[in-house]
Amino acid sequence: MQSKTLGELATYVNGKVIGDANIIIKSASTLGRAAEGEISFLANPKYAKQLHSTRASAVIVGNQMDTSTPLLVVEDPYYAFMQILVLLHGYRTHKKVGISKRCSIADSAKVGVDCHIHDYVTISDNAKIGDRCTIYPCAYIGRDTQIGNNSVIYPNVVIYDGCKIGDRVIINANSTIGEDGFGFASHNGTHHKIPQIGIVVIENDVEVGALCGIERGTLGDTVIGEGAKLGDLVTIGHGSKIGAHCLLVAQVGIAGSTTLGHHCILGGQAGIVGHINIGSNVTIAAQAGVINNIPDGQVVVGAPAIEASVGRRAYSMIQYLPEMRQAIRQLQKKLQQIQQPEPLSPDK
Amino acid sequence: MQSKTLGELATYVNGKVIGDANIIIKSASTLGRAAEGEISFLANPKYAKQLHSTRASAVIVGNQMDTSTPLLVVEDPYYAFMQILVLLHGYRTHKKVGISKRCSIADSAKVGVDCHIHDYVTISDNAKIGDRCTIYPCAYIGRDTQIGNNSVIYPNVVIYDGCKIGDRVIINANSTIGEDGFGFASHNGTHHKIPQIGIVVIENDVEVGALCGIERGTLGDTVIGEGAKLGDLVTIGHGSKIGAHCLLVAQVGIAGSTTLGHHCILGGQAGIVGHINIGSNVTIAAQAGVINNIPDGQVVVGAPAIEASVGRRAYSMIQYLPEMRQAIRQLQKKLQQIQQPEPLSPDK
Amino acid sequence: MQSKTLGELATYVNGKVIGDANIIIKSASTLGRAAEGEISFLANPKYAKQLHSTRASAVIVGNQMDTSTPLLVVEDPYYAFMQILVLLHGYRTHKKVGISKRCSIADSAKVGVDCHIHDYVTISDNAKIGDRCTIYPCAYIGRDTQIGNNSVIYPNVVIYDGCKIGDRVIINANSTIGEDGFGFASHNGTHHKIPQIGIVVIENDVEVGALCGIERGTLGDTVIGEGAKLGDLVTIGHGSKIGAHCLLVAQVGIAGSTTLGHHCILGGQAGIVGHINIGSNVTIAAQAGVINNIPDGQVVVGAPAIEASVGRRAYSMIQYLPEMRQAIRQLQKKLQQIQQPEPLSPDK
Repeated sequence: MQSKTLGELATYVNGKVIGDANIIIKSASTLGRAAEGEISFLANPKYAKQLHSTRASAVIVGNQMDTSTPLLVVEDPYYAFMQILVLLHGYRTHKKVGISKRCSIADSAKVGVDCHIHDYVTISDNAKIGDRCTIYPCAYIGRDTQIGNNSVIYPNVVIYDGCKIGDRVIINANSTIGEDGFGFASHNGTHHKIPQIGIVVIENDVEVGALCGIERGTLGDTVIGEGAKLGDLVTIGHGSKIGAHCLLVAQVGIAGSTTLGHHCILGGQAGIVGHINIGSNVTIAAQAGVINNIPDGQVVVGAPAIEASVGRRAYSMIQYLPEMRQAIRQLQKKLQQIQQPEPLSPDK
Repeated sequence: MQSKTLGELATYVNGKVIGDANIIIKSASTLGRAAEGEISFLANPKYAKQLHSTRASAVIVGNQMDTSTPLLVVEDPYYAFMQILVLLHGYRTHKKVGISKRCSIADSAKVGVDCHIHDYVTISDNAKIGDRCTIYPCAYIGRDTQIGNNSVIYPNVVIYDGCKIGDRVIINANSTIGEDGFGFASHNGTHHKIPQIGIVVIENDVEVGALCGIERGTLGDTVIGEGAKLGDLVTIGHGSKIGAHCLLVAQVGIAGSTTLGHHCILGGQAGIVGHINIGSNVTIAAQAGVINNIPDGQVVVGAPAIEASVGRRAYSMIQYLPEMRQAIRQLQKKLQQIQQPEPLSPDK
Repeated sequence: MQSKTLGELATYVNGKVIGDANIIIKSASTLGRAAEGEISFLANPKYAKQLHSTRASAVIVGNQMDTSTPLLVVEDPYYAFMQILVLLHGYRTHKKVGISKRCSIADSAKVGVDCHIHDYVTISDNAKIGDRCTIYPCAYIGRDTQIGNNSVIYPNVVIYDGCKIGDRVIINANSTIGEDGFGFASHNGTHHKIPQIGIVVIENDVEVGALCGIERGTLGDTVIGEGAKLGDLVTIGHGSKIGAHCLLVAQVGIAGSTTLGHHCILGGQAGIVGHINIGSNVTIAAQAGVINNIPDGQVVVGAPAIEASVGRRAYSMIQYLPEMRQAIRQLQKKLQQIQQPEPLSPDK
């Protein structure tokens, strides 16, 4: 953690100071929580009123605002905030443990330069670890699996045999990569296991959350595209392909043989059936249930998932079902009265 | 496991025996499964008829009932049943292994008295473990993380750096605490990782199920309040705060920066979006999808979640949509006939 | 991996060749991906048109088809395809490591013949492992737990104390078996842990996916029936019983004390509440929410789950709610106009 003046930060993020450029910034926080010496940011107009109550010493904004708090005006406030957090705090550092004497590396495995392999790690036959990787305790790297350079494997991650992990990949604790796909041929009431001969390919710059399960393909490969980010407890079925730069929030589940284009965003607990195609730049809301192909750029909500402009209204109307049903019954009754007015009683 | 007379049990739970106080109780079971020598309980009136068929030697009840089976009358039958199970069976005991020679404890780490640290455990630099803790094999305690007294960490649990775990906390196997939050600043199509500088705080008497993922905060802390209990495969997003004594059933997912009051109950697979406030004593049904603030004491169901008195009826009416739609069409047709009666055919 | 002629494969799977029986088959793939030397299969008529574009050297079919590609005609094409994949590729083989010097086996534990126990495995007091089992690194076998013959326990699996695992069981990485059920007696605002004195029984030929959590029973046992297959991140509550040969796809959640018959199929993310009975041969669609008993053979969809013939139409009609509501309002307005025509204005 280090300190910078607001002016230095402005130079660093290519922004403009409005106010005192000499104030010292030690850390960063949200508008609501920031204290003196901290810089905050305003990316969502919804929080604009907090600009007047914040105790932050400076605020990163996209446009000049009417406030006495010093401002740092940039094109993309949230991105600048990220850059400043990296500058002031940096990312988690990894202890330089070298190759532990308490780990197990097969004779036929290869480990690159400047790697840090912790205690109780297993690296199996013919596995190949690139340069400058960190592998935390109790991780397991299967036979023939390859990991690129500068990747970090957190504790208790299990990567089965034959998988390919790229450069600068981060896999968080307790995740499992390359377990057999859920593939059985049912015959006479018994489910016979199908050999899963595909692998998992995780491309460069992917981050996988904690406790994710990514199945290997039955025949083809399961692929997580470059720059994609997976939250915690996400599961990807056998042979599915996640395009580059997709964001999959926690507890998303994607069945097998489904393809996603690039830059898709999947909200938490969303589910996608197998054997369908999702385009690029598609947004799937939290808890949505997708059972059909989706074209590029579409936004869907709900289960079953429907296009958002219709779906947001439609799902919010479920609450009116009781009154709608009652209204229909009243209409039916009234209409019947109009068509068949009650006969006069005989004694009239 | 030990035996007691029904009278001894009554004294222990502050209850009253109706029937023979000298019968011997060795164990406890449900009404349907209990055998001779076992005590059962009736907490839910729904099961009252089982009182007449049970083979239990005695039954814990809230009120005197018409039965020949000996009864133990108490104020809170289920609580008394729990107390008796604890008395007769006790909780799981943990083998006194001391500090294994096959674990790795950093020189700068501190471990309290009477701790049992199993094989293949890693305790990192400056970590601090309180007194009388048990840490099972292959658990990982990150740098600067603190654990209070009398806590139990089951096998393969991973606690990242800098987290704070209280007293009498139980964390079940394969859970992950303090992994980085899912926080990225997207800029020109690339998702840039935001340093996650908050921690996870787990207060006293919390139990975390197996395979849970609790993210550290981006700026503030993620907090699991005192006495809260989490089921299996629960995930809590970065910076969220779970109030004291909440119950989160299996597979619940809570996104980031959301706050729950105390004594909330969340059913299995329920999901809550980020940045909202849930009051205290709120009940959220299984699979509910919560996207708005909820005031104290409310019960909600469904996705999107709506207040239960409306929601239970509303969601149960989805099945009538086909007939409702058809009814509307018929109404439209009939009304059209009334307003524009079919013209007489020209030849009439 | 080995090669066979199409004729040899036909003999092996008891099928009939139409075309050149001497062509060499080296591997197998899908119709869309197959290359020369590979055999594919057509099990779903939906893919029949791919029969004409495939580059597969032969295709397994259920009936003679009009194509120049050599065919292998069998009764159950997908099953034959599985048999051929097993013949040509086989299943994953497990390295014969014997009993590692770096694992921990309690003196009172028993390990059968021809077992392979990897580094960093813990086998606790009185545990009993059958013959020809493989236990991968960092797995934990609790006190008194029994495992049958020919079972495979993948890395970082945790099996708590006293559980019973059958023969030929496969448990994938990071799964947890036998953790305490989510059972608390709430009294005066505090949740008191109930001792969980049941166990988990996993019968023969079960496969458990990665990252599954199967709770032990509170009083009775949790049972996974013979031949059942669980996908990844599945959770089974305390005391539930899953019948033989059920298929539970990824992220399924079943609460406690629920019983499933045999041969049920549960789609991904489906949830079932506690204390209910599901018959045999029941199909529960992905993301369904089951809150009531289901009789044998029924197919249900949606949350709340309803019988599929109604449910598929009903849930797909949620999208029409906005227009239905508007139609009702228009009907109400029109009917009002009919019943109470607008009064003439006074000056007319």
